[in-house]
Amino acid sequence: MRTSVWSIDPRTAARRVQVAVEATAADVDAAVRAAHLAGGALADRVARAAFLRGCAAELEAARDAIVVTGDSETALGEARLASELARTCTQLRAFADVVDEGGFLDVIIDHPDDSIAPPVPDLRRYKIPLGVVAVYAASNFPLAFSVPGGDTASAIAAGCPVVIKAHPDHPATSELVLAALRRAAAAGGLPEAVVSVVHGFDAGLHLIRHPLVAAAGFTGSVRGGRALFDAAAARPTPIPFHGELGSLNPVVVTAAAAAERADEIGSGLAASATLGLGQFCVKPGLVLVPAGEPGDRLVAALAEALADVTPGALLDHRMRDNFLDGVAERSGLAGVEAPVLPGPEGEHAVRAGLLVVSGGTLGEGSEHDALFEECFGPVTVVVRYAHTAQVDAVLDRLPGNLTATLHVSADEARAGDSQTADLLTRLTGLAGRVVVNGWPTGVAVAEAQHHGGPYPATTSTSTSVGATAIERWLRPVAFQNTPDPLLPPELRDTNPMGLPRRVNGRREA
Amino acid sequence: MRTSVWSIDPRTAARRVQVAVEATAADVDAAVRAAHLAGGALADRVARAAFLRGCAAELEAARDAIVVTGDSETALGEARLASELARTCTQLRAFADVVDEGGFLDVIIDHPDDSIAPPVPDLRRYKIPLGVVAVYAASNFPLAFSVPGGDTASAIAAGCPVVIKAHPDHPATSELVLAALRRAAAAGGLPEAVVSVVHGFDAGLHLIRHPLVAAAGFTGSVRGGRALFDAAAARPTPIPFHGELGSLNPVVVTAAAAAERADEIGSGLAASATLGLGQFCVKPGLVLVPAGEPGDRLVAALAEALADVTPGALLDHRMRDNFLDGVAERSGLAGVEAPVLPGPEGEHAVRAGLLVVSGGTLGEGSEHDALFEECFGPVTVVVRYAHTAQVDAVLDRLPGNLTATLHVSADEARAGDSQTADLLTRLTGLAGRVVVNGWPTGVAVAEAQHHGGPYPATTSTSTSVGATAIERWLRPVAFQNTPDPLLPPELRDTNPMGLPRRVNGRREA
Repeated sequence: MRTSVWSIDPRTAARRVQVAVEATAADVDAAVRAAHLAGGALADRVARAAFLRGCAAELEAARDAIVVTGDSETALGEARLASELARTCTQLRAFADVVDEGGFLDVIIDHPDDSIAPPVPDLRRYKIPLGVVAVYAASNFPLAFSVPGGDTASAIAAGCPVVIKAHPDHPATSELVLAALRRAAAAGGLPEAVVSVVHGFDAGLHLIRHPLVAAAGFTGSVRGGRALFDAAAARPTPIPFHGELGSLNPVVVTAAAAAERADEIGSGLAASATLGLGQFCVKPGLVLVPAGEPGDRLVAALAEALADVTPGALLDHRMRDNFLDGVAERSGLAGVEAPVLPGPEGEHAVRAGLLVVSGGTLGEGSEHDALFEECFGPVTVVVRYAHTAQVDAVLDRLPGNLTATLHVSADEARAGDSQTADLLTRLTGLAGRVVVNGWPTGVAVAEAQHHGGPYPATTSTSTSVGATAIERWLRPVAFQNTPDPLLPPELRDTNPMGLPRRVNGRREA
Repeated sequence: MRTSVWSIDPRTAARRVQVAVEATAADVDAAVRAAHLAGGALADRVARAAFLRGCAAELEAARDAIVVTGDSETALGEARLASELARTCTQLRAFADVVDEGGFLDVIIDHPDDSIAPPVPDLRRYKIPLGVVAVYAASNFPLAFSVPGGDTASAIAAGCPVVIKAHPDHPATSELVLAALRRAAAAGGLPEAVVSVVHGFDAGLHLIRHPLVAAAGFTGSVRGGRALFDAAAARPTPIPFHGELGSLNPVVVTAAAAAERADEIGSGLAASATLGLGQFCVKPGLVLVPAGEPGDRLVAALAEALADVTPGALLDHRMRDNFLDGVAERSGLAGVEAPVLPGPEGEHAVRAGLLVVSGGTLGEGSEHDALFEECFGPVTVVVRYAHTAQVDAVLDRLPGNLTATLHVSADEARAGDSQTADLLTRLTGLAGRVVVNGWPTGVAVAEAQHHGGPYPATTSTSTSVGATAIERWLRPVAFQNTPDPLLPPELRDTNPMGLPRRVNGRREA
């Protein structure tokens, strides 16, 4: 008896349609073996760049169906999903450009040099794909961090076939998208098995343990991610596990910033914290606001804007329950007030809100620990600080984060004063991306992007967004004294592929 | 009662001198905390490049004492240790050059671009040091892979202070070298605690579990390395563990190569397999030689050269016991012959030797598994193959390796024929460095070097030798919309440090 996989409408909790059945160990094995065999077809860089662009084109061609289906099983809204689809296509095309340019191959050539101790032989190094990559799709981005998302795009760009564990919150969208990607593969003359989807919790475990799986990418909860990280590390042959697990995304507002633009910061924060109903990995979840009148105005503006946020359904009812439990736990802590109490709206939706606590109230012990853990959904916690020692005390308690945000006044930004610089350095130690006078939501696809941070934000030092995400799926190999005709073309003297490379310590092209 | 740490003469098994006591948990904690506090002093790139060069100068100034002490507790010979010291200094200075050049900071700048979906804000990314690095010293390279070795040099170059777990085979050398490094620190105005040494097995475990330790480098056995890898992964906050655990380093000799230069290959192999009495991570431990007359001549030349190798003491008596046990186990397997039987020489030394087995004899089952595991010491295993299917069958059974070596004829090298190319591709899949018509021993310090390979050769995709080894101790961070005066100087528009960088997709300098 196979377990059915249903697409569910989070706005009503009703089953929409049966999409698939959960994959057995044998199904996962078949998918991984097929991917492994298909992988060779990705060795040709021209073919895989074309494939990535073909995926973007197929997704755009199927946009309407994907957006409607996506909305019906995630409640994220058609406008948001249409823009997520655009972002996903930007990402696929950006990785095609990365493949074309070839800098990711990191070609380094050293000619023989007997003047060094020990002597250097002819050495030529570049990077090769690791093999089959397992991708664990996110709940909150059914496109950009799921079947056609950054992990898949970067793995394909690296030359690795992928097997994706679909997220149960959007199985129908996953299958629709898979079909689009496979049409692109077929059109490009690639085997369809370069990309596969499996459904089911157990399938995810079979996948991470499969001997032919060479690396994994994950976006999700600390609990689920850590379990898979542990399984990856416990294998007879451990594999790299690049997981993005959770992040509080602290924000610090200086006294001068609050005095300068309390209303603007308050309303901006409300918009960022409730974007996608607070279901963003980079939602600002903890905000340090000065005590005193400007801070009061900031919190009032924040509360006013939050009270105006339209209630809505979260991605699924388990998340709704967790959100309501999380809010109840936090709002019940000593000294915690709720100027706008987040809570249920009817049977299926939730309302956004705000919790506030004084920095002086936070104990040294573990009593307020829950405030320093991510609460997924439309709530943010404001800590009112009386002096900078309270800011330090709060930052000391934080685990690693994807982002950290600092709001400073125009004067503080101009002067580059040492106190502000020290605070920025402090935040840099806590996060992978530091935002000044802006908001962390909206993760641009760019070379200079870094979407990752100290654990538990990420389980490795890598990024899951931006061009350098390709590095996760490659390993270097060096060739010593290898006759030119036997070398891979990427490493030959004549540079027949016109790759950027470093030769004898100098960069060419 | 503290446990004493003795320097022992492996040529006599006699205790030479008590060097230290084993570090307690409190000692390790003190060393890590001191390193953590001292780390800030390494933020200045000029200071740390000077420190690395100062380390090289201090090691050279203390050369005689280090070489004599090193030989007395490792039996590696003064000539070898003098050349290892030169290599170690080359490595320290190479990393100083890497620090000066600044390319490792990987500066990427993207200016705002509203034409992309989603829009790109001002993003500037570079890499920052991870924090305190734990280094686990190797037995077989008391300098180049120990206290002043590649892990230490690359970590310091990255801006990370180090705490080194000394290897029990050379504690006196470790302390001598530590004193030299600390003199260099003091001369450069750096706190001495930027580099520390702890002794003792338990100290190594305390170190890997310490909350302030941010990453680890290891060179040693599969058993010890895997235990530490597991401990690193099991931490509440897992950390990167870059371990080099073991490698068989397969060699394939084609029929044409054997026909062309059987004697040269045989004697070359003997020299490589017994360099440092076979105590190299890259010792060729499994050699595929064709059946037939040229292969017979190759094996005869190999046996003749091995019989002439001067017996000597291994690094310690536990290794001697393991070597003799390993040889006994392997030579007792069905079909295994020993044209030169490796074995004991007196009470303390060992003789080099050779085991040979026919490819046709190797069963499908696990009977000959031991032949596919590293046997540390002066022995190599030759498999005589009747046809290429037997080569494939052997390669199928191999785990990951640091190196793989291919010997081809001049014709095969010129022609670049597809069979040879396929074999090279096959070997590339098994190793991190591929050597053609040469030997894997002698690991050059160069940018294009890669010393690492699929597990168990390495626990990560990184290298422990060469310029890119610095990447292990860094993590990227991106700054979004950060006013220029608040940015780290490395990321400012004017590029005050003159760093190589990528701006809007184009490389500068």
